[in-house]
Amino acid sequence: MEDTILVVNCGSSSLKLALFDQNYNKIASALAERLNNTDAFARIKNVDDPVVLSANADHKQALAALVNAFRERQLMTRDPIAIGHRVVHGGETFREASPIDDATIAAIESCSSLAPLHNPVNLAGIQAMQALFPTITQVAVFDTAYHQTLPERAFRYALPDHYYRDWGVRRYGFHGTSHYYMAHEASLLLDKTPATTSIISAHLGNGCSITAIRDGLSVDTSMGLTPLEGLVMGTRSGDVDPGLFDFLAARGISAREAHRVLNNESGLLGLSGQTNDMRSLCDLADHGHEPSQLAIEVFCFRLARYIGAMTASLSRLDALVFTGGIGENSARIRRETAKHLCLLGIELDSDLNRDHGRWSDGRINAADSRYPVLVIPTNEELVIAREAARLATN
Amino acid sequence: MEDTILVVNCGSSSLKLALFDQNYNKIASALAERLNNTDAFARIKNVDDPVVLSANADHKQALAALVNAFRERQLMTRDPIAIGHRVVHGGETFREASPIDDATIAAIESCSSLAPLHNPVNLAGIQAMQALFPTITQVAVFDTAYHQTLPERAFRYALPDHYYRDWGVRRYGFHGTSHYYMAHEASLLLDKTPATTSIISAHLGNGCSITAIRDGLSVDTSMGLTPLEGLVMGTRSGDVDPGLFDFLAARGISAREAHRVLNNESGLLGLSGQTNDMRSLCDLADHGHEPSQLAIEVFCFRLARYIGAMTASLSRLDALVFTGGIGENSARIRRETAKHLCLLGIELDSDLNRDHGRWSDGRINAADSRYPVLVIPTNEELVIAREAARLATN
Repeated sequence: MEDTILVVNCGSSSLKLALFDQNYNKIASALAERLNNTDAFARIKNVDDPVVLSANADHKQALAALVNAFRERQLMTRDPIAIGHRVVHGGETFREASPIDDATIAAIESCSSLAPLHNPVNLAGIQAMQALFPTITQVAVFDTAYHQTLPERAFRYALPDHYYRDWGVRRYGFHGTSHYYMAHEASLLLDKTPATTSIISAHLGNGCSITAIRDGLSVDTSMGLTPLEGLVMGTRSGDVDPGLFDFLAARGISAREAHRVLNNESGLLGLSGQTNDMRSLCDLADHGHEPSQLAIEVFCFRLARYIGAMTASLSRLDALVFTGGIGENSARIRRETAKHLCLLGIELDSDLNRDHGRWSDGRINAADSRYPVLVIPTNEELVIAREAARLATN
Repeated sequence: MEDTILVVNCGSSSLKLALFDQNYNKIASALAERLNNTDAFARIKNVDDPVVLSANADHKQALAALVNAFRERQLMTRDPIAIGHRVVHGGETFREASPIDDATIAAIESCSSLAPLHNPVNLAGIQAMQALFPTITQVAVFDTAYHQTLPERAFRYALPDHYYRDWGVRRYGFHGTSHYYMAHEASLLLDKTPATTSIISAHLGNGCSITAIRDGLSVDTSMGLTPLEGLVMGTRSGDVDPGLFDFLAARGISAREAHRVLNNESGLLGLSGQTNDMRSLCDLADHGHEPSQLAIEVFCFRLARYIGAMTASLSRLDALVFTGGIGENSARIRRETAKHLCLLGIELDSDLNRDHGRWSDGRINAADSRYPVLVIPTNEELVIAREAARLATN
């Protein structure tokens, strides 16, 4: 009977649960959606029958139902050796993953004001799993932790000093688990060690961020105090003029309302007026829908701008790396982005790019590109499982 | 008796007046400060006696007094052939300088909502000069006009489409007159024509902005809807996470109050807690004042990040150009910025840099730098005088 590790990722109204074996193969995964709604819903991946949830089931009830379903189907025949939790915000307290005890929980709570939509549900997931597995080591893996190596010139905003001292207003950065994994995987593909690998890592999913990694450490990143800053995303604006908020206030739109629009109605969705899904957007653009074409152009141009910006933190570049749903699967987005990178000397090979680097160890650059360009599938759950097992056995 | 041209630059509580001869030599300049205050004050440069102003003198009264003083001192012995006005915001209406008539004034008024602190005083200056010189051609030269060649991918924010269609929310860019002048002057130094010159122009004064210029045309710039976006400035924050406003709203700080802090209490002043003056800041840093050192580091790093970002709009780079009070005079800022540009292949010559390129036709780059680097003094008044004369004689 094998040892297993559970990985929990709680969103505001959804959650994902993944089960790994001791060799870090994923045995099963499950998800629950529309939690706290009358039509709350859960299912195990590749299993047709949904898992029965009560109406308005919350995170705790959904986790209990899914753990029970894993057991009933013999996917998990005894308690896991460790449980890893994705936690969005670790503030300046957590520079790496941490076993969960009362002090950890208090520290995660104290970061809730920095991530009010995320940390409270992450904590709900932790407490639900503690109730289900009171003797098993639980580990928090933070989206922000990997970026705690940013130098002060990169993490400070040009704001009054007390904004940082009193309120923690600084660049934290997110997607750290994915960017860390890129540094690790790129070093393998490049036949180097992580500690001698310098890359620019572009994580392009529904959220998008880019990180400059020097000798294995994060030294600059595009997301900041919150996951709203930086690149254009599915429904998020990324960077705007900070003068926008006063402009909107003069039109009767409060900061709160503007924040909602910038998070939920902007980005690819706002520009196209149609969708935040990149594949649909590319189809629309192919059929002559000009706002969708514009959305793609703005997305790629802004990404190229940030790739250029990240060079300021590196003295050597071993590879530009694309990951995330869009980064891994959209040859068009990579191609249109690379068009803006000729001054940096980056050139793609159109065949390798079309095949997403699948038959070329991730490589998609042309032979005469100044720097290698790689496509690497991300796997945040795997990193969380490894961290959970590592801290459980220590 | 020579032809002359007057150049008017009205700020919110101050104004500058410059007098050029027909060969575009500046004969005289004057300024007024603390307008609409009890201690309103005006003087001609290099003249000890102040020009007498009434208490609470406004822009109109100050202009009348200064024009009168120019006449009394025989600096201007007859009416100028043209009067040029700096106007901050020309919206999408003005792609170049424009003679001022009723339609021009109406169009400038209609841009006032985009620059509520600037366009109304610019208009006050225009109307004051129209009253003093009713038959002389007056010309508006817009800070935004040069940037009207930005492609849509560079001027659109990833916001709901109607923000642009209904409210004109887009990147306009500012300092256009200075960036245009850099393209022109750099082409002369490089022995090229403006239409074949591609540069990155960094205007670093109390306000700071950077522009990518491709074949003489502005194709990307750091300031946006307002002059708050982009680089760190004397008292302005430049870029921040747009999530900051909601974070501050949760602490009882309105968008309006945050806007005031970001414009007036941030930037170099906010980080250092001491001053927005770069020379004072460098002195403080030399004496071990750490917040001042940090302010300098953030300023230079953020500038280097933007220099990298601007490469996304260029396929060739003929020169990186520094201008403005800081750009022209601070060897330290240029040196600390260039430290972050080694991946781009930019290297300074420390001797040429120390001398601000004064004995080397502006060049400050090392022999093995991938791209030339130039220091070029800006002269926005000269451009405005030329534009005024050009449109007056057409």
